[in-house]
Amino acid sequence: MVCNEIRKDYLMNRWVVIATERSRRPTDFVKSKADSAKEKVCPLCVGNEALTPQAVLLYLNEKGKIIKDADNHQPRKKNWIIRVVPNLYPAFSYPLDGSCNVDRRAVNLVNAVGHHEVLVESPNHDEDLSSTKLEQLINLINAYIDRLDTLGSKPYVKHVAIFRNYGKEAGASLTHAHSQIIAMPILPRVIKEEIKASRNFYDKNKKCVFCEIIENEKKGPRLIFQNSGFVVFAPYASIQPLEFWIFPKKHNSTLLALTKSEKNLFAESMKKSLSALRVLVNDPPYNYGFHISINKKTQKYYHWHLEVYPKLSIWAGFEKSTGIYINTVPPEIAALELSKTIKKIG
Amino acid sequence: MVCNEIRKDYLMNRWVVIATERSRRPTDFVKSKADSAKEKVCPLCVGNEALTPQAVLLYLNEKGKIIKDADNHQPRKKNWIIRVVPNLYPAFSYPLDGSCNVDRRAVNLVNAVGHHEVLVESPNHDEDLSSTKLEQLINLINAYIDRLDTLGSKPYVKHVAIFRNYGKEAGASLTHAHSQIIAMPILPRVIKEEIKASRNFYDKNKKCVFCEIIENEKKGPRLIFQNSGFVVFAPYASIQPLEFWIFPKKHNSTLLALTKSEKNLFAESMKKSLSALRVLVNDPPYNYGFHISINKKTQKYYHWHLEVYPKLSIWAGFEKSTGIYINTVPPEIAALELSKTIKKIG
Repeated sequence: MVCNEIRKDYLMNRWVVIATERSRRPTDFVKSKADSAKEKVCPLCVGNEALTPQAVLLYLNEKGKIIKDADNHQPRKKNWIIRVVPNLYPAFSYPLDGSCNVDRRAVNLVNAVGHHEVLVESPNHDEDLSSTKLEQLINLINAYIDRLDTLGSKPYVKHVAIFRNYGKEAGASLTHAHSQIIAMPILPRVIKEEIKASRNFYDKNKKCVFCEIIENEKKGPRLIFQNSGFVVFAPYASIQPLEFWIFPKKHNSTLLALTKSEKNLFAESMKKSLSALRVLVNDPPYNYGFHISINKKTQKYYHWHLEVYPKLSIWAGFEKSTGIYINTVPPEIAALELSKTIKKIG
Repeated sequence: MVCNEIRKDYLMNRWVVIATERSRRPTDFVKSKADSAKEKVCPLCVGNEALTPQAVLLYLNEKGKIIKDADNHQPRKKNWIIRVVPNLYPAFSYPLDGSCNVDRRAVNLVNAVGHHEVLVESPNHDEDLSSTKLEQLINLINAYIDRLDTLGSKPYVKHVAIFRNYGKEAGASLTHAHSQIIAMPILPRVIKEEIKASRNFYDKNKKCVFCEIIENEKKGPRLIFQNSGFVVFAPYASIQPLEFWIFPKKHNSTLLALTKSEKNLFAESMKKSLSALRVLVNDPPYNYGFHISINKKTQKYYHWHLEVYPKLSIWAGFEKSTGIYINTVPPEIAALELSKTIKKIG
């Protein structure tokens, strides 16, 4: 039972999950500074399944065939190639049955109803998305879609965030290859702002603003890679060095309807661009996050995509007190170098 | 001559300074990862004044008396106690004389006209704001005010950001005690959003929303410290563990009019709260930034303050793709521990 709160700033449209249940004492940070020791036992490795909650989704390798299953009986299965489990310390998981005994309904406050899951991307601890087999990347995409479908259908879920933190500096607390999925009861600011702007553009121009952005960037100096289904480019106002976005050419607000061949093309785009990043900057930490709208009304004007943020700089006092970023690598240079690297790798 | 651009995102009200002049090659990040060697010579220490540009403001200790001066003749003075110099790699400093030879006027683009300065807070390399003498803190506040006054009066300046990065993890690239000042030609998103919300509140209620917040927080579980002039509290929706804000009780949109005794009370508030943070979490990295409005029209409803962000967590894929934060220390607990520590230190 986790009775977390989502609080809004006094003035700004800025929300924060206050993890009252998972809460740490201020002095905990002193210890965590001292012992940066490695995990001794990886809770996400094969054989250690008992260290995490029961799986909500498993892809099993049954004699070469991939079988979808849930881990709903003992003994826990070990032949998985993808495993999704509830996060032991969920940011979102407020019970709907009233068992949180404080009435937290107030202005500037929402209960943190939802789900927080860890998607183990491979049985191999060090599996890297830039060198993994295309088939495993497609398994990963399928697992994202499966969880998005299940969680996005729940009546109390307004948004599903699918994201990946790679490397300690990018916030990964476990080193085993994994993504995270958070289903939440509010529409987050970033998605809300994108939806609003793209709806306004659609009302005025009767077309998708993202489709227009793709058309422009395909022809310009910020293009990194494209195949018949996807475009990878460095956005005009990249807020981080070497940032890039992956867009499907086919208009859709969510990735639920991807065809088999589109998944292939998406996996290729991910693999090529993440490999180039890895080679160019010597395996840097990074974050990526899907931008998806699960609201069917937005289908006409919202366009899903994946944003990749290499962690090569620190947001400091200036960024925090103004909301303005400083990027020391112009996206045109980032795109040139990344695209050259993709060609070099072949 | 620095011809940087400020670019706006395709859709969102999100701006970034693209440092085209200071720009780094992507491969630079590989090197900087390898050699995290310390500075050999500190460019901010006494005796090394020639390593930085000529000062725009000096506070000199002339036989115990503090004299304000600019470093406008050789030899460069060495008896300074505060020294403000232009940043060698300014984010903002686009020349107004047309010498940037590209016409960059376009939609979603502003030239990065302005100033970017480094304020050396003390001749002592390791001077710490939590242990420095109150007199030196008041010198620092006076220097902030002097630069704010000068830069804020320039016709092309819409906002002055005064901020401090302490510790490498918080983005400080130099270890010598220093703050930074950036004068810019746009009103940043954070300040704009605060101004808009506080103006709306004022129009409806004929009072300052910040004054009301202060009244409430003074009485509540998030109060950390107060004296006759200032209140320190952990904000209701703190986005970082142990975050705290320092507010003047007297309503004002900017700190230009602070009296001598108010500066004393502000210095005391800073010193007490920063000391508590240092003691409680073993000298953590942090950022702070002033929230100021230099537009006289906002005087009635905007209320200046200082926001302090201890750097005890990492904003990762979730934060970047949603704009929602997760904070594992409830502000009520942060306030309790910080206020207890203040009492203990005495």
